[in-house]
Amino acid sequence: MQSQKPKLEVCLSPALLHLYNTEGSVVVIIDVFRATSTIATALYNKAKAVIPVASVEECITLGNSIDNSITAGERNGHIVEGLQHGNSPAEYPQDFIEGKTLILTTTNGTRLLHMIHGADTIITGSFVNLSAVCDFLVKKNKNVLLACAAWKDRYNLEDSLFAGAVVNRIKDCFDMNCDSARASETLFTSLNGGAPIDFLRNSSHYRRLSAYGLENDMAYCATIDLHPVVPYLKHTELLIHDIIL
Amino acid sequence: MQSQKPKLEVCLSPALLHLYNTEGSVVVIIDVFRATSTIATALYNKAKAVIPVASVEECITLGNSIDNSITAGERNGHIVEGLQHGNSPAEYPQDFIEGKTLILTTTNGTRLLHMIHGADTIITGSFVNLSAVCDFLVKKNKNVLLACAAWKDRYNLEDSLFAGAVVNRIKDCFDMNCDSARASETLFTSLNGGAPIDFLRNSSHYRRLSAYGLENDMAYCATIDLHPVVPYLKHTELLIHDIIL
Repeated sequence: MQSQKPKLEVCLSPALLHLYNTEGSVVVIIDVFRATSTIATALYNKAKAVIPVASVEECITLGNSIDNSITAGERNGHIVEGLQHGNSPAEYPQDFIEGKTLILTTTNGTRLLHMIHGADTIITGSFVNLSAVCDFLVKKNKNVLLACAAWKDRYNLEDSLFAGAVVNRIKDCFDMNCDSARASETLFTSLNGGAPIDFLRNSSHYRRLSAYGLENDMAYCATIDLHPVVPYLKHTELLIHDIIL
Repeated sequence: MQSQKPKLEVCLSPALLHLYNTEGSVVVIIDVFRATSTIATALYNKAKAVIPVASVEECITLGNSIDNSITAGERNGHIVEGLQHGNSPAEYPQDFIEGKTLILTTTNGTRLLHMIHGADTIITGSFVNLSAVCDFLVKKNKNVLLACAAWKDRYNLEDSLFAGAVVNRIKDCFDMNCDSARASETLFTSLNGGAPIDFLRNSSHYRRLSAYGLENDMAYCATIDLHPVVPYLKHTELLIHDIIL
């Protein structure tokens, strides 16, 4: 008997994206450290929009053409020359970002976002908006691909752990025949109720960003449900989806 | 301070292999269901050699040119037309395979094996030769890449679980900064001493092969240390490495 539930799958790296059919699906872009955490933070704090761009040049050009905009991006833990701000969610409190358009260039998440074709909806997810993402996916009731941004195409623990948290919450509403989803869920259940950051301190990305003194940033990015918003892509802008408001 | 230990990494899919430098490394090809389990079985049962080939045509051609050889391969659970045997380890007891050359074509493992370049040594691993593989890797004391054959480039649970079993055993002898290795180990430790097959019954590959009635095959392939041999590639042939004999 054919299952009538929509599919739930996890893609562990952009280099594996071609194996999945995203036509008509809801795709969740996951870049926990730190793009999708910063996006949720800025939008929750009433940024007008976040525009993810791939290159520094595009970031600067757009910044010059959009009123009341902020250009932001880091490489190797430092603000890129020519941009105004960094990738840290802590840089975007409401009294700074409200009403502004944040133009953000990041290494992995932005690239993945631009690789998705034919999706019904593209949203972004991180621990800070875990419950909002889960509620959204269940309400949409379409095939779901949880797409990990990874690190230069290499599998990473933090994105997979977040995918596992989503799988663990919503799997009963979906048809799941995806080993990546099962493995991600096993990672999450291995926490046994512990804090994600305690598990992630051993990850490659944590080690890399710790060298830049970004431990507080990462603890923030791994905190569940700070910002109950669902950023979704409308043309080139990420906005807050009103389905759950 | 620079670590003096060699590196230990896990590659979760052939589609990610380009991210790893295999130059001078020991690469372990992992295709638990069923190629690398069958290879260990046949060699333990005194096959003269196993020759892995990518295509059915090559299998037939080699079979015609090598005395006392057996051609073997399945697609979709059935022996391929023109070949003599299947991919099941149960088909290769000593009273049948001793002294013969097994020419084996498989979907995923063989392809991956032919993708590796510049390695010091290529060996094959599965639960049936887990301890032998671990002992070998520790004795060699070179960089190690545990390379999962996966399923048509998709991540699979059984190969990652085996990689995790190896990581769990040997990580203290290596420098490990690889999230795939950590995630694989977490999968393995989640067994909590239980049998691998109990975890794998929920995997995509188990479901697929169960439809062909291959449950006993898979239970066999997931049994630890049935066959303490290390198959290694010498030119085009897999032979038993004598380092641990």
